[in-house]
Amino acid sequence: MDISFFSQAYAQPAGSPIRELFPYLSRPGMISLAGGYPSPSLFDMDGLQEAGARALAQRGVYQYGPTEGDADLRERLCRLCAGRGIHADPPQVLVTTGSQQAFDLLVRTLIDAGDTVLVESPAYPATLQALRLAGAHVVEVPTDAQGLLIDALAQALAALLPARRPKLLYTVPSFSNPGGTLLSAERRQQLVGLAQTHGFLVVEDDPYGDLDFTGQPRATLYQHGQELAGAQSPVVYLSSLSKTVAPALRSGWMIAPPELLRRCAIAKQTMDLCTPPITQRIASEYLRLDRYGTAVARASAQYQARMTRMVQELRDRLDGQATFVAPEGGLFLWLELGPGIDSDALFAAAVAQGVLYVPGKAFYASASHPPALRLSFAAPTVDEVSQGIARLQQALGQARC
Amino acid sequence: MDISFFSQAYAQPAGSPIRELFPYLSRPGMISLAGGYPSPSLFDMDGLQEAGARALAQRGVYQYGPTEGDADLRERLCRLCAGRGIHADPPQVLVTTGSQQAFDLLVRTLIDAGDTVLVESPAYPATLQALRLAGAHVVEVPTDAQGLLIDALAQALAALLPARRPKLLYTVPSFSNPGGTLLSAERRQQLVGLAQTHGFLVVEDDPYGDLDFTGQPRATLYQHGQELAGAQSPVVYLSSLSKTVAPALRSGWMIAPPELLRRCAIAKQTMDLCTPPITQRIASEYLRLDRYGTAVARASAQYQARMTRMVQELRDRLDGQATFVAPEGGLFLWLELGPGIDSDALFAAAVAQGVLYVPGKAFYASASHPPALRLSFAAPTVDEVSQGIARLQQALGQARC
Repeated sequence: MDISFFSQAYAQPAGSPIRELFPYLSRPGMISLAGGYPSPSLFDMDGLQEAGARALAQRGVYQYGPTEGDADLRERLCRLCAGRGIHADPPQVLVTTGSQQAFDLLVRTLIDAGDTVLVESPAYPATLQALRLAGAHVVEVPTDAQGLLIDALAQALAALLPARRPKLLYTVPSFSNPGGTLLSAERRQQLVGLAQTHGFLVVEDDPYGDLDFTGQPRATLYQHGQELAGAQSPVVYLSSLSKTVAPALRSGWMIAPPELLRRCAIAKQTMDLCTPPITQRIASEYLRLDRYGTAVARASAQYQARMTRMVQELRDRLDGQATFVAPEGGLFLWLELGPGIDSDALFAAAVAQGVLYVPGKAFYASASHPPALRLSFAAPTVDEVSQGIARLQQALGQARC
Repeated sequence: MDISFFSQAYAQPAGSPIRELFPYLSRPGMISLAGGYPSPSLFDMDGLQEAGARALAQRGVYQYGPTEGDADLRERLCRLCAGRGIHADPPQVLVTTGSQQAFDLLVRTLIDAGDTVLVESPAYPATLQALRLAGAHVVEVPTDAQGLLIDALAQALAALLPARRPKLLYTVPSFSNPGGTLLSAERRQQLVGLAQTHGFLVVEDDPYGDLDFTGQPRATLYQHGQELAGAQSPVVYLSSLSKTVAPALRSGWMIAPPELLRRCAIAKQTMDLCTPPITQRIASEYLRLDRYGTAVARASAQYQARMTRMVQELRDRLDGQATFVAPEGGLFLWLELGPGIDSDALFAAAVAQGVLYVPGKAFYASASHPPALRLSFAAPTVDEVSQGIARLQQALGQARC
């Protein structure tokens, strides 16, 4: 098949930079700080098996289900959201195959080739990939320790408007991937205000918000949007049980205005008719068991312990060579390297030392960014974290140019 | 949100004509011959629960899985395909969330707006919808009692080539939806030959092939393609466990040339990262139990009994008023009405009589087709089939104009 046979977007598509790391993962003794996966040791196996047994005993669960999602699950997700300060009714919720599918639905229903989209930077690679394949004009908005830089956003908007009004802005405000940062309360309000003023949607992707090390309540962008504009809120909320219960449930969801949700349901019909009703029912039975809060608190405590060790090791071993923000939740730490480091040489040296991370370029739409890397503290044990950072220190020593 | 906010395809999208029937389904006493669903009474509950219990006991099954699909399932699907005369290795198989997703992946990776696509006519509505939303130029190729009309295809090709070379042709050669027809062996060879000669792909969608009332072996288009052209075969094979094991597994798959499969995997990454590994493992554990053949034979016998009654009732009650081909497998019977019937009046009369079907217009891309309707014999009991056709007879009497 020659290239002209494929659609333009897929004539010569680039694969995922994270998938390129897979071959290294199986090397003996490799410590991976690369994965974006929760730790399997923290899965609530008892709860999941009980929920599974309950779900699988129901004959009706083996049939097709509504495209919008299982009625029980939509109800349970509304209750879960209420605990996050989000008040939504089941008809406002679309169940998706992971929040990945929710974003893909938004791209399909909102974005034509050439449309402008704002993204926090650095950003989740699959978001960048979905936008690239849709032919979107991606504008990166930089972040700092408190998340998205509102001044930079205002500048970007001033440069774009009115000719290139962006359709949406994508952000993970709570414990971003890869930044690990938490958007401050003040900036949350400012961001929603700018969206309301200038007429773009804010896509709030919130898979990590419950993996919180602060213990402090915070308002979602969705809440700010409701307070500011009620039914006219510019915020679309995405979340997922992948990081808190189990990735393999692929249970994500979207809360959006009705006319957008309806179009997403039409798009989802052509995509997969419905998310597997079996996993949806397992998810709703799990939420019914009332184990979610305990399981998430236990996982968060483990992740915090691993993160604390990582931060300590980085301070001890890489002082002056790299900068980072200690995460207050989530799975990731973003390490920015000083000058004089060749990224490719560093990666090769790290692999040789037996430690894996995701090179920073995966998280940018454009090329000109300082060398950085994403470290995950989710999957390794505390000891592996120590050893991994020690190996990274060795690799850095070798990669100075 | 005003319409200009949405992508062009979703500015004013039409929903599914089948979904529009949902409100009628809940009317008391309604007999539905409309559904495209297998009968829940035929689900192999013992096997599914055993497979489920085995799958859910495995900690690894709760984690993310490869985008291409669970290794066990790909292996098991290859074995299942071998029983259909299809010889493929696991790397040639992409697991999808139903075969619906497989077709959507093909549309994304192959079709740009304006590209020409051939479809059998009448055709599965979600296929037509996916093509419409992609902006494809859809050319309908008529069918008769032996499936796709090869002469009509040759004529369509002559009119299109060379300026508008079609990218692909979509067909369900074995017990089509809605036609219920089986493409003859001779036409299978001719179709694959034309595809090979003129350089378009044949998408062979085969969800119903195992629901066979003939007991006669037959070659898939995939096999014909392999025999004719080996690795250069123009046939892409899609199938699904939805109609044979359980829809809620959403376990579909695609067998395609490597460069196409790779692009579909890249597209799937942005769509949902992976089909839920839990349902994939339930499917592979189910296939491992070696109950598939028995369960499918049992279901086929039931469907055949219901079909036989439907055919008998149609002959007894609608003689001279409608024509049809007695299905040799699958779930559907396509009833073409003679002149003098107002489709809308018939549908209203049928609903009033308490019987539901899918109006024929749902299965056409263009408007000018004789009135017809799709009847499913899958879900109703034999008695309900009789009663449903009796009600249809009443409605036809009322709808003569």
